[in-house]
Amino acid sequence: MEARLKTLEIAVEGDRLGATMLTPATRMPGLLFVHGWGGSQQQAMQRARKAAGLSCVCLTFDLRGHERHARMRQTVTRARNLADVLAAYDLLAGLPEVDPEAIGVVGFSYGAYLSALLTAHRPVQWLALRSPAIYPDAPWEAPKVALNCDPGLPAYRNAVLAPDDNRALRACAAFHGDALVVQAEHDTIVPPQTHRNYEAALANAHSLTTHLLAGADHALSTPAAQAAWSRMLMKWLGALVRREREQLAREAFRERRHTIPG
Amino acid sequence: MEARLKTLEIAVEGDRLGATMLTPATRMPGLLFVHGWGGSQQQAMQRARKAAGLSCVCLTFDLRGHERHARMRQTVTRARNLADVLAAYDLLAGLPEVDPEAIGVVGFSYGAYLSALLTAHRPVQWLALRSPAIYPDAPWEAPKVALNCDPGLPAYRNAVLAPDDNRALRACAAFHGDALVVQAEHDTIVPPQTHRNYEAALANAHSLTTHLLAGADHALSTPAAQAAWSRMLMKWLGALVRREREQLAREAFRERRHTIPG
Repeated sequence: MEARLKTLEIAVEGDRLGATMLTPATRMPGLLFVHGWGGSQQQAMQRARKAAGLSCVCLTFDLRGHERHARMRQTVTRARNLADVLAAYDLLAGLPEVDPEAIGVVGFSYGAYLSALLTAHRPVQWLALRSPAIYPDAPWEAPKVALNCDPGLPAYRNAVLAPDDNRALRACAAFHGDALVVQAEHDTIVPPQTHRNYEAALANAHSLTTHLLAGADHALSTPAAQAAWSRMLMKWLGALVRREREQLAREAFRERRHTIPG
Repeated sequence: MEARLKTLEIAVEGDRLGATMLTPATRMPGLLFVHGWGGSQQQAMQRARKAAGLSCVCLTFDLRGHERHARMRQTVTRARNLADVLAAYDLLAGLPEVDPEAIGVVGFSYGAYLSALLTAHRPVQWLALRSPAIYPDAPWEAPKVALNCDPGLPAYRNAVLAPDDNRALRACAAFHGDALVVQAEHDTIVPPQTHRNYEAALANAHSLTTHLLAGADHALSTPAAQAAWSRMLMKWLGALVRREREQLAREAFRERRHTIPG
């Protein structure tokens, strides 16, 4: 249900007080967490708990090739993992308590790459990419593990790439929501140039926030780095969720002006 | 409904991904706005709209002696206006979509005085007092307008008062929620000492935040002062609402640890 502005009366001692009630939209934003290669849904739990403080419904899941589907580690492809992300998105956005126009996706490394690809297939309002990995498009159906064995991969990640050079960047160039790109200062897996390429590709985003996690490595292996990332994400997300909820409330006020004379 | 943590499976291409969904508490915090003497519910609309951004259900209303009950201006008493506030509180806290354990009250001047009194009668989690007025307890049943004609009132407001000297301060001393006291720098109605008395009385609050609105008068008659007050209130309230929602999510995690072995 959308935000509602209601004029009402409160009975007290035989009198009736004029009153106004503003009820926020009852459907909540949805937040999808996509873990990195070799990770699991557990990584997102701390962030999910904090995002619940923003009244977001949070979904975390294990990509195939991980946890119970670890047997697929050598064979799973990007295409299949993207299908995983799409299935998780569809479950989340289809929940009756979730507002399908307020879906955020938070991806890390390979999960951030998949998250960028997701935006070409589903509406995403808020896109958070932490240390987003990138891979050449071809061969698209190769197993994911083979991509990391490509001797040209480090050079590819250090090259200046335009949106048309890569599917994930092309998806970013068509993205119109709010974007966050977070870089770890001492990342030895995803170099600074890859971040710059994503940032440049996000030129059509409604807003782009970039952030450097000082002293952090790719995995954010210290509690301090984990906490800094959580804080940063919640600050960014909190402002966007508030803005979106406020916008819905504003529409309720506008609606009243149209329907009640005077 | 409380926050829920649910383990589930997502079907994709014949496989089933392990997933976890965290759904925040669906009942929302409630926020009651109590206007000052000579004011109306309209004063709170800007703040209510912003509070809807925090997913709070907001209720504003006209005290008797104002608006449609303006004929009672000369006769209405504190007791009757407190009854107004209690009736509004009960309506808000009784809504099925409102969490009765997460009620905030925002009062201005005479409305802040009434808000402090309210806490002696109903559970309040968050208490925001802007330029809180104060009056001697006796004669309790005198019309409100007579209180302002008391030639001793300015001296009373400039005196150091202990909680036992005044009903509103006694209520504050018994308040265990989070409190905010906001003072306007150039307030000629409620002097600094009255603010100090409220702050000292709030010694048992879970937290006490005090704030000075630089350059502002009692009525916050400039848009800049209005905006500064809105910002301040939303920052304070936003952090508390987040903390409370997070706490509910934390309980959902704790619950799971108790019910699922391993």
